[in-house]
Amino acid sequence: MGLHMPLSPYQQLELEFRRLHAFRGAAGVLRWDAAVMMPRGSAETRGEQLAALETECHALLTSPRISRLLERAEANAQGLEAWELANLREMRRERDHAIATPQSLVSRLAKATARAEVRWIEARQQSSFALFAPHLEEVVELLRSKAMLLGKALGLDPYDALIDEFSPGLTRAHIDPVFATLGQRLPSLIHEAIEHQAHTAPLPIGGRFAPDKQRQLAVELMEAMGFPFDRGRLDESEHPFTGGAPGDIRITTRFSPTDLLSGLMGVLHETGHAMYDLGLPEAWRGQPVGQDRGMALQESQSLLLEMIIGRNRPFLRYLKPLLAKIFGVSGPEWEVENLYRLLTRVRRSLIRVDADEVTYPVHILLRYDLEQDIFAGKLKVADLPEAWNAWMADRLGVRPRNDAEGCLQDVHWAVGSFGYFPTYAIGAVIAGQLYEKLRADRPELDEEIAAGYFAGLFDWLREHVHRLGASVGMHELIERATGRTLSAGAWLRYIEGKYLGE
Amino acid sequence: MGLHMPLSPYQQLELEFRRLHAFRGAAGVLRWDAAVMMPRGSAETRGEQLAALETECHALLTSPRISRLLERAEANAQGLEAWELANLREMRRERDHAIATPQSLVSRLAKATARAEVRWIEARQQSSFALFAPHLEEVVELLRSKAMLLGKALGLDPYDALIDEFSPGLTRAHIDPVFATLGQRLPSLIHEAIEHQAHTAPLPIGGRFAPDKQRQLAVELMEAMGFPFDRGRLDESEHPFTGGAPGDIRITTRFSPTDLLSGLMGVLHETGHAMYDLGLPEAWRGQPVGQDRGMALQESQSLLLEMIIGRNRPFLRYLKPLLAKIFGVSGPEWEVENLYRLLTRVRRSLIRVDADEVTYPVHILLRYDLEQDIFAGKLKVADLPEAWNAWMADRLGVRPRNDAEGCLQDVHWAVGSFGYFPTYAIGAVIAGQLYEKLRADRPELDEEIAAGYFAGLFDWLREHVHRLGASVGMHELIERATGRTLSAGAWLRYIEGKYLGE
Repeated sequence: MGLHMPLSPYQQLELEFRRLHAFRGAAGVLRWDAAVMMPRGSAETRGEQLAALETECHALLTSPRISRLLERAEANAQGLEAWELANLREMRRERDHAIATPQSLVSRLAKATARAEVRWIEARQQSSFALFAPHLEEVVELLRSKAMLLGKALGLDPYDALIDEFSPGLTRAHIDPVFATLGQRLPSLIHEAIEHQAHTAPLPIGGRFAPDKQRQLAVELMEAMGFPFDRGRLDESEHPFTGGAPGDIRITTRFSPTDLLSGLMGVLHETGHAMYDLGLPEAWRGQPVGQDRGMALQESQSLLLEMIIGRNRPFLRYLKPLLAKIFGVSGPEWEVENLYRLLTRVRRSLIRVDADEVTYPVHILLRYDLEQDIFAGKLKVADLPEAWNAWMADRLGVRPRNDAEGCLQDVHWAVGSFGYFPTYAIGAVIAGQLYEKLRADRPELDEEIAAGYFAGLFDWLREHVHRLGASVGMHELIERATGRTLSAGAWLRYIEGKYLGE
Repeated sequence: MGLHMPLSPYQQLELEFRRLHAFRGAAGVLRWDAAVMMPRGSAETRGEQLAALETECHALLTSPRISRLLERAEANAQGLEAWELANLREMRRERDHAIATPQSLVSRLAKATARAEVRWIEARQQSSFALFAPHLEEVVELLRSKAMLLGKALGLDPYDALIDEFSPGLTRAHIDPVFATLGQRLPSLIHEAIEHQAHTAPLPIGGRFAPDKQRQLAVELMEAMGFPFDRGRLDESEHPFTGGAPGDIRITTRFSPTDLLSGLMGVLHETGHAMYDLGLPEAWRGQPVGQDRGMALQESQSLLLEMIIGRNRPFLRYLKPLLAKIFGVSGPEWEVENLYRLLTRVRRSLIRVDADEVTYPVHILLRYDLEQDIFAGKLKVADLPEAWNAWMADRLGVRPRNDAEGCLQDVHWAVGSFGYFPTYAIGAVIAGQLYEKLRADRPELDEEIAAGYFAGLFDWLREHVHRLGASVGMHELIERATGRTLSAGAWLRYIEGKYLGE
């Protein structure tokens, strides 16, 4: 492009989306600040800042100028490179999502979920679903309107349109067969795994672990994995998350003085997300094509690191001397085999976020079933607690004693995230599928990890997942990386090998 | 207003300025984060976020819609309350400032100052003005264009237009007589003060002071003064500042383990700024009328707390037991009288930020003289070092040995802040004027402060300064608060009493 040539419609779009990216990055850092640094009393001020940024992003995406530029760029796409065509497709996608729902509905939903979240916190504290029910009803009602408009615009069934917001390209047509397989196999698999572990109870880990030393361990692990502390941070917050902005990735975790392993696993989980973000192509930064390919793939990266790599013997062989160095610990409970048993213990339990790797998908199947029934009006909001408790008793064999350990345990529905839960279990399944191929491609993986050499792992992931950004669809990405379409097979083989095979 | 009545032009303006306020608050928190939390390598990403926000603010202020609404609101102002009229006037002021300079010039200046700042850092490290000179020339050139356009739009002389950006209503016509008085009296006053202190050298404070304990002291002081830690924070950064956003005030300071008093004075200084921001009327928050009345008044609040209150015996009587409690210190060097001598020592020195209260204005007179000469083209940039050194030798009796302790010591010119320096000394003068009236109104002030009771002080300041926001001009505010127009008299009486009188 000559210095004074007018910008093409496509180039003008790139500039507009770069501006959008800057606003989103600003919002990302402000959200991180709200969770980690902000004084409590400043929440309202922060809410106004974030609302102004979100309104601006929506206005930018839905402006007539963007529509015109998209039409002109699409009509003159012949000169564009492949990644630019993909970028144009993703721009169109973002615009179509944004324009499908009017600002007034977005704003009503934002207010309703803000109220519902506050009431959900109270309701959970008092373990009283009745406090929360009317707010959930309001949120569901508004979500139905949104899903209908979104589905119409995207040519999708309404519930699929909600899933599509979190994980583009994922629909019930993909999820249902995978979940059917899991639903058939898991009950017996859980039974067998528990039997298999019956005579190998791990020794518990006692004592207290200073948070600053837990932090030191986390930093050492993250550095070994290639996390760039000159372009990212690690902090503490009530709920772990990965936030900030591309080029400024901020991980948080929670260090409990009495539970060393949970803080550590939280760090691995978030590092998995961060490495995905860090592996996205720098040349596409600021453009839609340079983003990750949705929450299911995001979750595949975090679960691969936390569940498959982190809760396995090679990693624990690497970890053991680090624990000895930093905490001065030794003895039978700190042996690799005992740590492995602690981290792979299968239990029928009530709380999703504390569940082990094997029972975890069951918690998701429950939510996936119930949220569809509520959304479709087949299940009344008032009947949710009993439906939840009956489902758990029937399918996992444990029954919540109250709503706090039942249908009030997660924030997702309060904040309107219907269609989000399935991405967790699909993420686990993708992780299993990637791992099977990774092991085949890289037989030396176990030795590398035991030696604290993680570059082999991340090189493979960067090559087959990260560097693609959003240039291909999720299904194409999975097929290219693994040679197969999405299915539960590889994950089940991995779980059977790990939990029944030895 | 009825629920469905259309909004008046004035009401629509309020909504637009509230949005502007939200963007500025977001930028304020992001700037704080950049100085306190952000990893070094994320500077470019942050730069793009801040540029996008600034561009948006400029676009909002200069939009035809705002111009139309202002004209309509001004034509129908009869129903507005007094504070709304003041708000409308401030809205007009902001719009006229913004629209006077085209975005292209703003953007060129932003890039030139970003480059100049980087080169200034290098030049200062190497103490080589030649490295910096061409960049300063470029900045001055662009500033002249900006000042000309701004001055034309505002009906002000160009240099006055630059001052007006920092301290609305302040011009050379106000500054010159004040600085003339200071310039006449200070040389002999400094000489007398040094003579007066000749036989009372303070005992030095030795030892090391753990930053976490310095922090504890700072928090205790700030709480005593009413700083609300549920809506603000105290952190550390390389250069102390007060930032964040209204409703989320963030102070920073620097705790040197070997210099307890400088960190403490930094905290007092920034707390003075913060208390001004916190005292602005909540009902006007988000509107131009709800902002502070410019940098000279801001500086009056910080200097009143740091120099007049903090470096005086009543405060030190309150401080002494706190120091003993927190640091376990005692002995003759920790007596009130010795601390007082340490904090009021007059010295002819080279570095502005380390200067004592009496010599400080001389450093400002120097910069005020030279920046006008450079701006007017009377002094060539290349001749600045020699002009600086000669001025210092002639007027303060000390001569810099190199450019780092001469004309390269401040960042202000590199970042284009011509017209800013005078606000420091005018701030000191206003502080002296406010203090004289405050003492007359509140004879019990010294006893209150010695008892750690600061509410009397801040009630007076809130009543006479803070709560007015930008509803009146700076000069009217000073006259209402003190019964007199701006002049150096009160400050000189205060200095003479403190430094010559005992």
